[in-house]
Amino acid sequence: MTDSRINDNGARAIGVAVLGMGNVGTEVVRILTDNAADLQARVGAPLELRGVAVRNLNVPRDGVDPALLTDKPEDLVARDDVDIVVELIGGIDPPRMLIRESLQSGKSVVTANKALLADYTGELATAAAGAKVDLYFEAAVAGAIPVIRPLMQSLAGDTVNRVAGIVNGTTNFILSAMDADGSDYEETLAEAGRLGYAEADPTADVEGYDAAAKAAILASISFHSRVTALNVYREGISKITAADLVSAQALDCTVKLLSICERIVGEDGQQRISARVYPALVPLEHPLAAVNGAFNAVVVEAENAGRLMFYGQGAGGAPTASAVLGDLVMAARNKVHGGRGPLESTYASLPIAPMGDVRTRYYVSMRVADRAGVLATVAGEFSSRGISISTVRQEGAGDDARLVVVTHRAPDAALSETVAALEKLEAVLSVSSVLRLEGTNE
Amino acid sequence: MTDSRINDNGARAIGVAVLGMGNVGTEVVRILTDNAADLQARVGAPLELRGVAVRNLNVPRDGVDPALLTDKPEDLVARDDVDIVVELIGGIDPPRMLIRESLQSGKSVVTANKALLADYTGELATAAAGAKVDLYFEAAVAGAIPVIRPLMQSLAGDTVNRVAGIVNGTTNFILSAMDADGSDYEETLAEAGRLGYAEADPTADVEGYDAAAKAAILASISFHSRVTALNVYREGISKITAADLVSAQALDCTVKLLSICERIVGEDGQQRISARVYPALVPLEHPLAAVNGAFNAVVVEAENAGRLMFYGQGAGGAPTASAVLGDLVMAARNKVHGGRGPLESTYASLPIAPMGDVRTRYYVSMRVADRAGVLATVAGEFSSRGISISTVRQEGAGDDARLVVVTHRAPDAALSETVAALEKLEAVLSVSSVLRLEGTNE
Repeated sequence: MTDSRINDNGARAIGVAVLGMGNVGTEVVRILTDNAADLQARVGAPLELRGVAVRNLNVPRDGVDPALLTDKPEDLVARDDVDIVVELIGGIDPPRMLIRESLQSGKSVVTANKALLADYTGELATAAAGAKVDLYFEAAVAGAIPVIRPLMQSLAGDTVNRVAGIVNGTTNFILSAMDADGSDYEETLAEAGRLGYAEADPTADVEGYDAAAKAAILASISFHSRVTALNVYREGISKITAADLVSAQALDCTVKLLSICERIVGEDGQQRISARVYPALVPLEHPLAAVNGAFNAVVVEAENAGRLMFYGQGAGGAPTASAVLGDLVMAARNKVHGGRGPLESTYASLPIAPMGDVRTRYYVSMRVADRAGVLATVAGEFSSRGISISTVRQEGAGDDARLVVVTHRAPDAALSETVAALEKLEAVLSVSSVLRLEGTNE
Repeated sequence: MTDSRINDNGARAIGVAVLGMGNVGTEVVRILTDNAADLQARVGAPLELRGVAVRNLNVPRDGVDPALLTDKPEDLVARDDVDIVVELIGGIDPPRMLIRESLQSGKSVVTANKALLADYTGELATAAAGAKVDLYFEAAVAGAIPVIRPLMQSLAGDTVNRVAGIVNGTTNFILSAMDADGSDYEETLAEAGRLGYAEADPTADVEGYDAAAKAAILASISFHSRVTALNVYREGISKITAADLVSAQALDCTVKLLSICERIVGEDGQQRISARVYPALVPLEHPLAAVNGAFNAVVVEAENAGRLMFYGQGAGGAPTASAVLGDLVMAARNKVHGGRGPLESTYASLPIAPMGDVRTRYYVSMRVADRAGVLATVAGEFSSRGISISTVRQEGAGDDARLVVVTHRAPDAALSETVAALEKLEAVLSVSSVLRLEGTNE
């Protein structure tokens, strides 16, 4: 920090480097420029943009001094007059190396990079702690919605037991549209792509990898333990059909891709963490059922606070930039006034519960032979594994005869074993759909 | 800070004094004891309870070492081994003096005292800034729901335009019950008292003083200006009738006591603040309409973040204690690691808009003479003041003939002038109800 430019108020300016100029980076640069006076008043010193790293210098960038652009992010973060690095490139490399080097050289870092944080928070937080600087990442989960700061700070004196959220806008857009229109998955995905809600390669979103990375981050923070994306059980939405949505409606439910982080206390008294992502039936009266389109919401259940819900825009340039700027102002304030925000807290070191041990509820829809005794045979497969059935509905007749079973809570392993056994029954022609049911008290 | 007890890990213990042992204080003391190990891990040093100030030493206090109790809070806050003071007495005096002296002697303060903060944040924040200590007050607004920290920190880089919240549990309990049961205000208030949702003297709640204090705090933070309770326009719920709820239902609305803070840009380009509390019609599809019973919710609209909503328990011992403990852990972390949270920010110094200038929508219900021409006469009173009518409904006949008018947005002064003029019309027998309508885009 050899920079010592002094502004009118006598406060040294805080140098900011922005890495990446996609939707979010563009908005961050715009707000830094448009709101410079407000930001200076809030920080106590001016924020000065030292440079913006882009992949392609030939793309015209409106409203940015071309002299600030560089295609060498490693040189930008090494500059002595940069105090805070805002990383918006995404992906593991090169951000991992750029952030680590920034932290090690005493620069605070603000990032929205959930994939990186899901796997490397430990390494990066250690670097930040060593250099006594900040690593902030509010924008990595649920865009504009304050979730990380409430969990790390507002609930720092409470015990979080469960976090369940809709934290992926693409899949929520698709599921909301399928629910509203009765449309198929494939056509809705294509429509989402046309409208800009799905990427050309939608795998990370529709197969739940993005939601799993966010679940890992939320679980780590909530339970003061290190949880990586590999610890998160994951199912995507690509097998959800129009028929599933119809069945959900018949049960006064809708289907949502949920990221769930849960503290589980075993019969041995040992606390474990379950982190999981899957499409689930959610009752219409549950607050998450009303979260539609590209919106996100996170429900937190804590010992003393009870149930809290946070709702808002989970993606998009300006909303995500709002979260980035909030972190940037806090990091800059710490540079001016001393001190720093909380870093990784892993003292609890809780182990991960295997998915099979997690107690969930299943909805199973199957085509069955239309003859007496089928219900008894099917019910027997559940009861022999200690699973209690909540409701059974028989639908159709002849070739169209169907059974829809909703269970009470039981270990996931017993439930999936039961489904495998049902598939082998002669009386069951096919198991057409299996979904978990969340958001009920039974 | 002459205390230098060193714990096993070599970190000096952080001494905590709790002032007041009502519902919230009792829960704070319980959590400090029950969760001592977790809190120590999160702070980086043990939190040690140095004393609890109570009014009456003769009341038995379960689970508290009697040696810790004192009825001399001024002596407790003066102790050298107290690093953080948690003020839960409530009211202006003696908390004002106790907090000021605590801050001036280098102690950080956590308080839930909205009445005090609404009028004296300036004085207290100045003392905190002078001594470089923290003044945290998350629990002062909306109990367990993180609202203060998100507004001060997560949205520090954004521009807040509007905050609208249900922040008083007593009135929300009463209005929810009146909506559900069709019951009268007086009988519902009595029921709320029996159930512990209303105090023996319910004035502060039902007349909107509590909601106004919270509106002042929210407006100050949101708009970086100093807003006191006197700047907040205030109407309570004591005139709301069972008939108002029926009328609301007929318009697909319900009635909620709202605390609204708004940035208003005048025709002169000058920005002003409107802070106001009144019972308003809220459309059923608006997220605040579904917030029932003792729950609280706050909707924040910011330039870049868009619309955010925070929902949860707004009162009660344990939920409020959760917010207090979060602040306490943050204040203690700052004592251990250095640095401090943001204090009052008033750089924008926006003036307050008079209520008459605020543009609102009115719902007016009146008994009218059942004869031709009445509608034209009534409509004329609105149009002559430049007010555009959205809908008119005629109900009943003969002695029961009524007109229900809903306007578009217009200056509040013109609307209230119109109502006064209507009351003087011969054709209008009585104006039975006037409510504002919020939560629409028209």
